[in-house]
Amino acid sequence: MSTSVIILAAGKGTRMRSTLPKVLQPLAGRPLLKHVIETAKKLNAKNIITIFGHGGPLVQQAFSEENVQWVEQAEQLGTGHAVKMTLPVLPQDGVSLILSGDVPCVTQDTLQRLLDASTQTGIGIVTLTVDDATGYGRIVRKNGQIQAIVEHKDANDEQRQIKEFNTGIYCVNNAKLHQWLPQLSNENAQGEYYLTDIIAMAIADGLDVASVEPTLAFEVEGVNDRIQLAALEREFQQDQAKKLMQQGVHLIDPSRFDLRGHLTFGQDVRIDINVIIEGDCELGDHVEIGAGCIIKNTKIAAGTKVQPYSIFDNAVVGADAQIGPFARLRPGAKLANDVHIGNFVEVKNSSIGIGSKANHFSYLGDAEIGAGSNIGAGTITCNYDGANKFKTIIGDAAFIGSNSSLVAPVHIGHGATVGAGSVITRDVAENSLAFERSKQVAKENYQRPQKLKK
Amino acid sequence: MSTSVIILAAGKGTRMRSTLPKVLQPLAGRPLLKHVIETAKKLNAKNIITIFGHGGPLVQQAFSEENVQWVEQAEQLGTGHAVKMTLPVLPQDGVSLILSGDVPCVTQDTLQRLLDASTQTGIGIVTLTVDDATGYGRIVRKNGQIQAIVEHKDANDEQRQIKEFNTGIYCVNNAKLHQWLPQLSNENAQGEYYLTDIIAMAIADGLDVASVEPTLAFEVEGVNDRIQLAALEREFQQDQAKKLMQQGVHLIDPSRFDLRGHLTFGQDVRIDINVIIEGDCELGDHVEIGAGCIIKNTKIAAGTKVQPYSIFDNAVVGADAQIGPFARLRPGAKLANDVHIGNFVEVKNSSIGIGSKANHFSYLGDAEIGAGSNIGAGTITCNYDGANKFKTIIGDAAFIGSNSSLVAPVHIGHGATVGAGSVITRDVAENSLAFERSKQVAKENYQRPQKLKK
Amino acid sequence: MSTSVIILAAGKGTRMRSTLPKVLQPLAGRPLLKHVIETAKKLNAKNIITIFGHGGPLVQQAFSEENVQWVEQAEQLGTGHAVKMTLPVLPQDGVSLILSGDVPCVTQDTLQRLLDASTQTGIGIVTLTVDDATGYGRIVRKNGQIQAIVEHKDANDEQRQIKEFNTGIYCVNNAKLHQWLPQLSNENAQGEYYLTDIIAMAIADGLDVASVEPTLAFEVEGVNDRIQLAALEREFQQDQAKKLMQQGVHLIDPSRFDLRGHLTFGQDVRIDINVIIEGDCELGDHVEIGAGCIIKNTKIAAGTKVQPYSIFDNAVVGADAQIGPFARLRPGAKLANDVHIGNFVEVKNSSIGIGSKANHFSYLGDAEIGAGSNIGAGTITCNYDGANKFKTIIGDAAFIGSNSSLVAPVHIGHGATVGAGSVITRDVAENSLAFERSKQVAKENYQRPQKLKK
Repeated sequence: MSTSVIILAAGKGTRMRSTLPKVLQPLAGRPLLKHVIETAKKLNAKNIITIFGHGGPLVQQAFSEENVQWVEQAEQLGTGHAVKMTLPVLPQDGVSLILSGDVPCVTQDTLQRLLDASTQTGIGIVTLTVDDATGYGRIVRKNGQIQAIVEHKDANDEQRQIKEFNTGIYCVNNAKLHQWLPQLSNENAQGEYYLTDIIAMAIADGLDVASVEPTLAFEVEGVNDRIQLAALEREFQQDQAKKLMQQGVHLIDPSRFDLRGHLTFGQDVRIDINVIIEGDCELGDHVEIGAGCIIKNTKIAAGTKVQPYSIFDNAVVGADAQIGPFARLRPGAKLANDVHIGNFVEVKNSSIGIGSKANHFSYLGDAEIGAGSNIGAGTITCNYDGANKFKTIIGDAAFIGSNSSLVAPVHIGHGATVGAGSVITRDVAENSLAFERSKQVAKENYQRPQKLKK
Repeated sequence: MSTSVIILAAGKGTRMRSTLPKVLQPLAGRPLLKHVIETAKKLNAKNIITIFGHGGPLVQQAFSEENVQWVEQAEQLGTGHAVKMTLPVLPQDGVSLILSGDVPCVTQDTLQRLLDASTQTGIGIVTLTVDDATGYGRIVRKNGQIQAIVEHKDANDEQRQIKEFNTGIYCVNNAKLHQWLPQLSNENAQGEYYLTDIIAMAIADGLDVASVEPTLAFEVEGVNDRIQLAALEREFQQDQAKKLMQQGVHLIDPSRFDLRGHLTFGQDVRIDINVIIEGDCELGDHVEIGAGCIIKNTKIAAGTKVQPYSIFDNAVVGADAQIGPFARLRPGAKLANDVHIGNFVEVKNSSIGIGSKANHFSYLGDAEIGAGSNIGAGTITCNYDGANKFKTIIGDAAFIGSNSSLVAPVHIGHGATVGAGSVITRDVAENSLAFERSKQVAKENYQRPQKLKK
Repeated sequence: MSTSVIILAAGKGTRMRSTLPKVLQPLAGRPLLKHVIETAKKLNAKNIITIFGHGGPLVQQAFSEENVQWVEQAEQLGTGHAVKMTLPVLPQDGVSLILSGDVPCVTQDTLQRLLDASTQTGIGIVTLTVDDATGYGRIVRKNGQIQAIVEHKDANDEQRQIKEFNTGIYCVNNAKLHQWLPQLSNENAQGEYYLTDIIAMAIADGLDVASVEPTLAFEVEGVNDRIQLAALEREFQQDQAKKLMQQGVHLIDPSRFDLRGHLTFGQDVRIDINVIIEGDCELGDHVEIGAGCIIKNTKIAAGTKVQPYSIFDNAVVGADAQIGPFARLRPGAKLANDVHIGNFVEVKNSSIGIGSKANHFSYLGDAEIGAGSNIGAGTITCNYDGANKFKTIIGDAAFIGSNSSLVAPVHIGHGATVGAGSVITRDVAENSLAFERSKQVAKENYQRPQKLKK
């Protein structure tokens, strides 16, 4: 039976006090709606129908590469009205999961259980049991069967004691949606069409309403303001951290770890405090990431140690390398095995060969450096002439003296040596020494500048 | 009716184990007493009378610019004795709020409610109801009216069940203080004069004692040791963070955010983990502050992105600028719109014009840089000759090659170019090229130094 | 009476999912087993007998410098079997404390109380009372006397209500161990020899079993997976932080502080957020450590302020120095009083005299710098010729211009001045000026490179 996923994403989110539509607010670095779409894709949904409203063009643009259908809810007339907008594109057969774009953490597992539970009944909901369900629509049961959902304001004292409530996540037979949604009424205090009313219709039709509970409560938490967003961010991060630890990652402090993307890892990876992992990252066996590092879209091979406060973005690092502290690898940095990159060194769009070292502040941009070379402190590849960028090629076993400026395009041969403080503008032959320097001049009994009178 | 504020600030705070008087210990970057004085000022208090004792000169010096009256309590003979010291300067009319210098978080709102509640009665207190009030003076009520305050050690079993206690914050008619304080007795176990005794006097005089509770419990928490100080710091920070989020600031982790001063902000400001904001800061719409940044007394205009681990102090940053990571703006740094400052760059007392860039380690001190200029990696303004500091002036659209040293005072004209590695000691004319360089020399088949035998 | 300590350290720790034996997993920077050995040493144990199994050579190697006896448990046949392995080396007289290598936080105080309590009885255990002891062996008492320890699976409903359980820490008369251990049976469901069975033997012999509870619950927490390890790390850190605060250290946020070693400190030390202290460190009176600093094996004298994101490793810093932000002191950095080290400066194996300054990015390696000298921005000591390292000696009151390269071995005399951008290869005499520089050349109406067509 084919599954559609309908995502309610039309809300403005006034309480966020933002120009960004609510479903574009980020959780763990990705828009709320992105989380829901990713989960929908894991379920192999045939259609993902997203109902947009406020900030529609922004929302559609943010997901222009996703295979989703967009349905507009021009007026905000309630959740039932929103889902009714999907009828023109909703298949007649199969079932639909109805999710909210601002409830980002519901899991594939919970939804699969909902689908399974709803197969027989044709309708099911996700409920949650808590100590105090004040404000929520209570699940009234008789002999275990759901009899009704009673909104908090309509509930009597006895019903208000009920601890199980409706989370607003539904699974419904599409044929039923086509039947029920046109019958929804807005004759209520708010004048809105409520999706919840289909439960009463189902019961009136003699259907059983299936239900499942989420594995973890935070799966069904919604986001309405910045405080809820920050709280959910922490719950999501703690859950991610817990899973990583269960699989053997050594997190020194899981409450000071942020994963904003996906991490692949080997055995005995150790991550110190306040590390942020962004995008898709891969850490090999025994990789150690020091405190405060920020690693984005980067692959680091086994045995490499990254010292504190290093920032990597779209880099590739070989095995047994030593990087940092205060190292910055920018996009296109490709480091071979055993490379050493030290403090205050910036590498951009450059490859560095096996065992080469740049241990102290240097800027290596648009460079190709061979194996076993030593780049002295303060070396700068002058890759930009104000209009164009050029490459610096350095061979194997070269020695670049400190404070050198290598004016690209330039080629330093294998085994070549560059004297300290040189500005190198012409190619340097293999095994040769190149330097650019004047005579050192001495003036005895030099009178230093004096403090000027003001 | 005029309001005086009396602040008890004479305690030594032995348990802090510090040479600093307790009321000078910092909470959120400001002395405890400073918080209380600031709140007093918000209430438009006519007089702020501070009772000092231990560390008096240090305390007075710390607040030498505040309009407060100082009264010395030379001997520590109890809270009642302390307040009695104020009688010579206390007005005969009006009312006084009696606060503690080590209870820093009480709010204007709570105190205003106390003032309002005390208008009729002439006396009122702030009480707090908790699950377990062990150790505190219990509020004994009959038909809602306060009958007595019974100290914990004097309380019977029934009274010890009382959950409402006296926080030690009072509002009293000044005429009554002049009447009651001289009558206080020290005939008790400790031989001290207790301010609390005025409550019994008020009740004996047939007065009703008004009371209010604080909005949040931490308002009335006192600080006696480092553990309490650290705990209160967190509560204060969490409360500040919550208010910022309610107003629309996107804090990625409110428990890893420190505001030590005052933050003004536009819409959609995003602040990543472990940021510290100090002093008075202003962040425009859509400003993003990366992880670990420390921003002090700085104004940043709309759309600017600050990458991680950047430190700003008394700087001004224009709109749509890109700063960091690892950038340092020191006092007097003034960056126009669209300026780019990259990693390991330090800017001090310098202005940088629209769209100019210094993307890699540079020291820019006492410089004026025009618009659209490019400052190469490793450029240093040599602003100090060992005795005096001089300015470096760079025009618009200049291009400063990497590793250049600009020896101030020096002027680089509009559109001028400086060759890489040059030491520039003389002015460079508009649209000219300046360089300082020797010939590059090559020696074939160079023999590298060999490892010396030891 | 002499005390032996027997430590069970043979477990593999499968749930850690690590190649490292469990007892080598680090807590606060030291292996779990190291914590237990350190506590044993504080008790002046005559023998420390460690039972190894999984990863034995690795474990023995990690503690090769400790005075411990190693006993192998080749097969994992239970805790009773493990302790039985020690009988050949266990003294006949005295008592033994039996500890677990994966229960690292038990304190000297708790163990001393256990020893004292067990003196009369010849046997005693550490128990813990909690709300829910599910899974643990319950302590069955009658008139206060321990009657039995009943494992959870063997307990009846009434026994499962018991909140006191056996933590697995024992004190036993050695003579009794020699008597009881050979009698242990493995006739149970798991086919293992359980150490717990000696309690039943003791009771059968008519002995009273003494018991004590730990001061803090986390003392008896064991580590079986990464989640438990991370949780215990936090409890251990919070406990350390609390003790430091009680002794007067001002921690801005104790939940963001990591001490991985031992800290000695003076009065009014202030430590900002996210600082890590490693190894043995000493901070003098009024030392301030800024946010994010990492200080390892370093001694800092009174009054020194360290600004944020500075990293020290095996350094010595004098009084009233100003260091950072973004400063790095590597092994052998020795800074005298009043030294200033600024941003992006690296100091390695170098001494810097009183009042000298290196305020902006510099690399100072293998240098000896006198007093009152000023090291300009971008100065690099070229200490490495590709094969050997040499020293740079700089006298007092020297002035090194910015962007200078000092090619070691080289000596800069007292009061000497080096011009900006110079490469200094020969010694510079006292009070002389040395520079290496070409003439500045100007070309009018220079045509900048143009953007190349692609």
